[in-house]
Amino acid sequence: MSSDARTVLSQSHPLVAGVTADSALVRAYQGVRHSTTPVWFMRQAGRSLPEYRDLRVGVRMLDACLDPELSSEITLQPVRRHGVDAGIFFSDIVVPLKLAGVAVEIVAGKGPVFANPVRTLADVEALPDLDPAALAPVREGVALTVAQLGTTPLIGFAGAPFTLAAYLVEGGPSKDHIRARTLMRSDPATWSALMDWTARITGQFLSAQIEAGASAAQLFDSWAGSLSRAQYRASVAPASAQALNSVRNTTYQVGDETRTVPLIHFGLVSTQLLPDFRTLGTGERMVDAVGVDYRTPLDEAATLLGSDVTLQGNIDPALLTAPWERLAEEAHTVLALGRSARSHVANLGHGVPPETDPTVLTKLVELIHSIDVRELPSTGTQA
Amino acid sequence: MSSDARTVLSQSHPLVAGVTADSALVRAYQGVRHSTTPVWFMRQAGRSLPEYRDLRVGVRMLDACLDPELSSEITLQPVRRHGVDAGIFFSDIVVPLKLAGVAVEIVAGKGPVFANPVRTLADVEALPDLDPAALAPVREGVALTVAQLGTTPLIGFAGAPFTLAAYLVEGGPSKDHIRARTLMRSDPATWSALMDWTARITGQFLSAQIEAGASAAQLFDSWAGSLSRAQYRASVAPASAQALNSVRNTTYQVGDETRTVPLIHFGLVSTQLLPDFRTLGTGERMVDAVGVDYRTPLDEAATLLGSDVTLQGNIDPALLTAPWERLAEEAHTVLALGRSARSHVANLGHGVPPETDPTVLTKLVELIHSIDVRELPSTGTQA
Repeated sequence: MSSDARTVLSQSHPLVAGVTADSALVRAYQGVRHSTTPVWFMRQAGRSLPEYRDLRVGVRMLDACLDPELSSEITLQPVRRHGVDAGIFFSDIVVPLKLAGVAVEIVAGKGPVFANPVRTLADVEALPDLDPAALAPVREGVALTVAQLGTTPLIGFAGAPFTLAAYLVEGGPSKDHIRARTLMRSDPATWSALMDWTARITGQFLSAQIEAGASAAQLFDSWAGSLSRAQYRASVAPASAQALNSVRNTTYQVGDETRTVPLIHFGLVSTQLLPDFRTLGTGERMVDAVGVDYRTPLDEAATLLGSDVTLQGNIDPALLTAPWERLAEEAHTVLALGRSARSHVANLGHGVPPETDPTVLTKLVELIHSIDVRELPSTGTQA
Repeated sequence: MSSDARTVLSQSHPLVAGVTADSALVRAYQGVRHSTTPVWFMRQAGRSLPEYRDLRVGVRMLDACLDPELSSEITLQPVRRHGVDAGIFFSDIVVPLKLAGVAVEIVAGKGPVFANPVRTLADVEALPDLDPAALAPVREGVALTVAQLGTTPLIGFAGAPFTLAAYLVEGGPSKDHIRARTLMRSDPATWSALMDWTARITGQFLSAQIEAGASAAQLFDSWAGSLSRAQYRASVAPASAQALNSVRNTTYQVGDETRTVPLIHFGLVSTQLLPDFRTLGTGERMVDAVGVDYRTPLDEAATLLGSDVTLQGNIDPALLTAPWERLAEEAHTVLALGRSARSHVANLGHGVPPETDPTVLTKLVELIHSIDVRELPSTGTQA
């Protein structure tokens, strides 16, 4: 699964130029520990912010994602407001599909809806290639954002091949992704062709963001939790590895040292798969960090994942609306358990719920930044 | 957590009268192995059957559940059609709440909707007790059913306290049950009062079905998978144990032998909790069988759960629409892996999807009944 391809970043890239290379976030992903913990929140950009809701009035979701000025502004909003340690590029999991020419719209209250579900080999073969030129709005949005972010790194992101495939086969969101799983087990040749296509699209989307200035990239496999471990390993993980191989050898120099752009994997409700998120079935480490769902305490995750990955997570979003003392207690517990890993990036164990009071997130960032983790007990019990 | 209460079944109960006491299903739950495997399907009654859809024309879901003639007929339909080894009483998880006087309606395409979500201690204290007389339609439906079923046992069922509480707090279905989990962690006193109430209602609902003639009972914790193991153990499992304690000492005599009415626990998407479904945090075995979601192979489940429980499951419903050879292969694999347990009851690893072709289920029952598991390899790999 390893690849000899080496991507060289341009001299203006924030990592090469040294602008973000020593940021707490990038270094934490690379395994360095500081006394305080960098923090960002999944879905920090978007629904929970009134300034976002203002910007979105009359603008459709995918139009917002593909307008570089808008996607950049939306990405920057939570960084300005909360003082988090990273921006996460505002986009949607289906954006690379849309850019390839797949007919998809995001319907409010429902999610992405595809005009033509993909269910046969002919359907897969009819899927268009993603013209690199079509990624221009993404490259521009990223470039505008990193120019504004300065020393704060930007994280790129993409949905994992299985999650994209689940949407394509179902034609929209679904419980348990049963049609996709039926295809996977009924027609391995079609499934394999589909996963190869989604892996290529995902790799291109990640590459575009990193080349344009993202200092790290996260692969989200929202729906992998619907699979058994054997199914994941046999029919899904290889495509995730293929997608990450497009970007995992992206290196840069800091003095005499060659470093790679850090990669993160996150899956939801997938306790049974957690150990595989480090290697994606390749036998070697494919990512620098693994995001952990709120259901698995970080000390257990560290045991399952080993000592060569950084952990990211996993404050339970349910506590964002709890009394402040409960949330503060949870943050302390998560930071203490995060000491089990080689390094730790604080985050939620799932995305920010839309109804979250953003002032609570700001206060949580301040709290996390105020805690010297060396003063915390290294073991504890996470509720 | 053990209780000295002993429920004595009436002489006319199918187990006492010996009508179902030696059925393959009851004996498998009690740990006995036969050469062939009993089988039933979660959600076998209902949506997938045209004869059910005919009966439901113009009849609201909860009205169907509370009309003894209808609930009985709907329960019997899949037994007649498929030749499964058990009926599962046709009801809905919210029926005991409705019978207690909670204002709830089932909205098509949405699920149960509650007029007054339960979010404060005052809300919990205002929840009405369930008058045993209100359970009459359930008792009658069960009695009518067992009179028709003859030697085929009826399984009673109830939603677990957490699943009921999640609906009550949210006021309906929800992703991740975040409001319920916030209440659980913000206000332990209110949570505890709510879980005590739901445990009592659940216990009464299970008791009514067993006393009226059910030969086994299954507790469904549909939503427990949204919890970490520590949360489940601290704030949820005790209420499930409390509910099961109402029925777990229900004994009957077969010759010199005292046997208990078998109990089953099933949770969805809850790999992290599977070992706890045997003991529910009590340190002792609380159920005779554990239903296993399709995500966990039965040999792994047997390792996690130990040798004193029967396993139930876990054919992936995604295969019901796959080519027959794939489904047959899956059935063979599941039966082979089921040999890892002390005994095995075949089932799906989730409910029958509404779009299932019922003739496939009938054929699957025939296949399962035709396989002598002693001739299968005792190990295998489940995809």
